[in-house]
Amino acid sequence: MRRDPFTIALFVPAMLALAFGSASAADQALLTQARALFQPLPKVMDSPENPVTPAKIALGRLLFFEPRVSVDGTVSCARCHLVSLYATDALPKAIGALGRPNPRNAPTVLNAALQFVEHWRGDRKSVEDQAMQALIGPPSFGNPDYGSAMAKLKAIPGYPARFAAAFPNEKDPITPENWANAIGAYERTLVTPSPFDAYLAGHAAAFSSAQEAGLREFVQTGCPACHNGVGVGGGMFQKFGLVEDYWKATGSPEPDKGRFDVTHNPTDLYFFKVPSLRNVARTPPYFHDGSVATLPEAVRVMARVQLGKTLTEAQTGRIVTFLESLTGTLPPGFAEPPELPAAGFHPAAGK
Amino acid sequence: MRRDPFTIALFVPAMLALAFGSASAADQALLTQARALFQPLPKVMDSPENPVTPAKIALGRLLFFEPRVSVDGTVSCARCHLVSLYATDALPKAIGALGRPNPRNAPTVLNAALQFVEHWRGDRKSVEDQAMQALIGPPSFGNPDYGSAMAKLKAIPGYPARFAAAFPNEKDPITPENWANAIGAYERTLVTPSPFDAYLAGHAAAFSSAQEAGLREFVQTGCPACHNGVGVGGGMFQKFGLVEDYWKATGSPEPDKGRFDVTHNPTDLYFFKVPSLRNVARTPPYFHDGSVATLPEAVRVMARVQLGKTLTEAQTGRIVTFLESLTGTLPPGFAEPPELPAAGFHPAAGK
Repeated sequence: MRRDPFTIALFVPAMLALAFGSASAADQALLTQARALFQPLPKVMDSPENPVTPAKIALGRLLFFEPRVSVDGTVSCARCHLVSLYATDALPKAIGALGRPNPRNAPTVLNAALQFVEHWRGDRKSVEDQAMQALIGPPSFGNPDYGSAMAKLKAIPGYPARFAAAFPNEKDPITPENWANAIGAYERTLVTPSPFDAYLAGHAAAFSSAQEAGLREFVQTGCPACHNGVGVGGGMFQKFGLVEDYWKATGSPEPDKGRFDVTHNPTDLYFFKVPSLRNVARTPPYFHDGSVATLPEAVRVMARVQLGKTLTEAQTGRIVTFLESLTGTLPPGFAEPPELPAAGFHPAAGK
Repeated sequence: MRRDPFTIALFVPAMLALAFGSASAADQALLTQARALFQPLPKVMDSPENPVTPAKIALGRLLFFEPRVSVDGTVSCARCHLVSLYATDALPKAIGALGRPNPRNAPTVLNAALQFVEHWRGDRKSVEDQAMQALIGPPSFGNPDYGSAMAKLKAIPGYPARFAAAFPNEKDPITPENWANAIGAYERTLVTPSPFDAYLAGHAAAFSSAQEAGLREFVQTGCPACHNGVGVGGGMFQKFGLVEDYWKATGSPEPDKGRFDVTHNPTDLYFFKVPSLRNVARTPPYFHDGSVATLPEAVRVMARVQLGKTLTEAQTGRIVTFLESLTGTLPPGFAEPPELPAAGFHPAAGK
């Protein structure tokens, strides 16, 4: 059916009214689309490999804050995952034991267990794998080997009994695997439900019309191609710089080859894990190298180098408004570091 | 009046009964003596120079946990005064910005404002003076000057309004002095009332007979000559090693000349501030150089080098039991680091 210009002039506004004018129908369509793309947070990010138990959580919460296990006694998980900063450190690249710089930005541990792999290059299989390897990572805890790390834990009064409670029926429960499983179990409880989760669950009042407009912009711009699922990201690898070289847009000093340096597969050149966007408004600076300081600039860079789009200021602002709806409530007790077992003394640190 | 041996044999037990056998009289005498030597904690350690206000406390609590003001973005007050470790770091000597080692052990900030001066050598007049000088201390926050430190604070959204609220009617309230006064005001709230305070207040049930025996041993050994007052120490300078060289007893690698290096007065050689013993059981390692790992060993060393006494194991144990009664309740909210102003970015780090 052909239409003359006059008919079209009448028809287009009618279509727009159908799409946007009728708030409830358009809003329902948006929610339906959102539910196809994203899922709300679970209560706990449980794992069949490391079932979460209260004793493991309690021990893992202590260990998360325990610096005496590091080579110089200054590094705990909380050293770079500060409870005051949504479990980040506000640095472009974290600084670990003995002042050693990390090669990449420290992401938040909140909701981290949702991700399909950990670390920017995906070279940690799980939060447990991350916690275990961190013990001997030179710019992390910096221990020369697992044995010396475990010796430090064993020397602190209070830990043997707590490991025994968390891992019953084990002869010598203070092992790197159990360190990892305890911290992993704790981290699996660190979910931060947000207004977006309430929206996905059908609580329309949880979302303002500005947030709906932001979600619409986010979807229409094409962001959910990578940033989807329960983490709004964290589910795949993607090349950073699909359309143009990322380091020209970010001003990064030199390109990081990303996953290529792990697999040596040419198709992995400049590939990184797509980060989860949960709490992204509270976790600057951005990208694997912390090269961008603000969220609006990060949104502009992503649209440009991933999608070949130059966003207007209004579009950028709407997307930022949506991203702010991903800021969640901190897990109960997360911002209350526990008292550590007393009278411990870092055995390696001089006398 | 002379007495023959038989009379003495009858008389001594009678004296002992008078001194110890009659629990209530002896206990009352001990309490009276304790009240002459020590005072219970105030509710707030207020200061006429820096009156504590709610707005100052609220700002100071944020600043206490704020790492973005340091030269490398890794050092806040809480970096070395961990809320999980009674505001210490369990290290012999603290490690600050850029991995720089401090010359001496980091004492707890809990009850610190009670002390007549701060730092081991008394070269900080108050908690405010300490907080201010730490900003530019190379092994503390490591800033090259106050201006650059203030620039970092000003760049973090949320601080200008909070400084204005805490220091009204000031044109440019983000100053090193106000940083110091806010943190000082917060620290002046950090009191940890203990069973010993309840005992001093007359609540006899707060103290066990073992704790009373420990207090008696502490007094009879002579410890309150220096460890007295509201802080059970923290009120004077004293030579470390009155009877013999301290470094031979502690195994310290080389002698620290203490206050002599501040005043260049020969009478100050090896003089240090007598530390408060509040929470001492939770704040190892011990002494200005963190050279001793455990509390019993610290007690033995002190008795030997300060008082020329070799304590038995039982005597040491009793004194340790008393010292454990100085472990207090953490201040409400102390172990709950606040969320810091969002979207800040450490301006000196990266781009």
